[in-house]
Amino acid sequence: MAKLIDKILGGNVKSATIADDYTEIDLSKYEEVLEDEPAETYIKIAEITNINQVAALKQEVYNGNILMIDISTIRSDELLRDRVLKELKDVVVDVHGDIAGVKGSTVIVTPTGVKIDRSKLIGGRY
Amino acid sequence: MAKLIDKILGGNVKSATIADDYTEIDLSKYEEVLEDEPAETYIKIAEITNINQVAALKQEVYNGNILMIDISTIRSDELLRDRVLKELKDVVVDVHGDIAGVKGSTVIVTPTGVKIDRSKLIGGRY
Repeated sequence: MAKLIDKILGGNVKSATIADDYTEIDLSKYEEVLEDEPAETYIKIAEITNINQVAALKQEVYNGNILMIDISTIRSDELLRDRVLKELKDVVVDVHGDIAGVKGSTVIVTPTGVKIDRSKLIGGRY
Repeated sequence: MAKLIDKILGGNVKSATIADDYTEIDLSKYEEVLEDEPAETYIKIAEITNINQVAALKQEVYNGNILMIDISTIRSDELLRDRVLKELKDVVVDVHGDIAGVKGSTVIVTPTGVKIDRSKLIGGRY
């Protein structure tokens, strides 16, 4: 399991996401068109730092939401990271969702009916 | 428009995503449970380098798929970047989807029924 995840996430953590914080696009002038429309599915951005947060994350997936989880904080803690990923995978198997790592330290977790396309749509660099 | 996007994406491009390539999580042992299940929605990872790619990206959103677009290549080209983002925003307004920038040079574009939660689920750092 640990070896698998090491292979998955790669060895070089040093160039990870410490410096490029999340930057929200402020699309306020567009949002006035879009606001107050309830959605079936939300993409939620989360950062996980300890095991106690997993329950809330799992609940989000059961609620039908997509998670983008920053695991950079726990990436070097092999035991914690494996346990978190194991818990998330259990949900994915349960709801027939999907899970994949992108961009170094981000893990996408999807609910029923949403899959992650493994082939790159455009751009052969990756 | 340009000012807005500069504000959005931040000024310091230097720490962007050049080094942290996409790393797929190889969950083959889980995928044998999940394979061959058609999904309603796919999350597609794309990289945009020129304006000719926008049509295909727009079509994906019209098809109901979610895009995670790496714009790091065009980020410093203000005219191209603004045009690409304008085109993507037009689709979002059209289908009542959503658009937001996360993690420096990644833009998420969603189709009808999927919204991006602006509040961070867990973790107050961002």
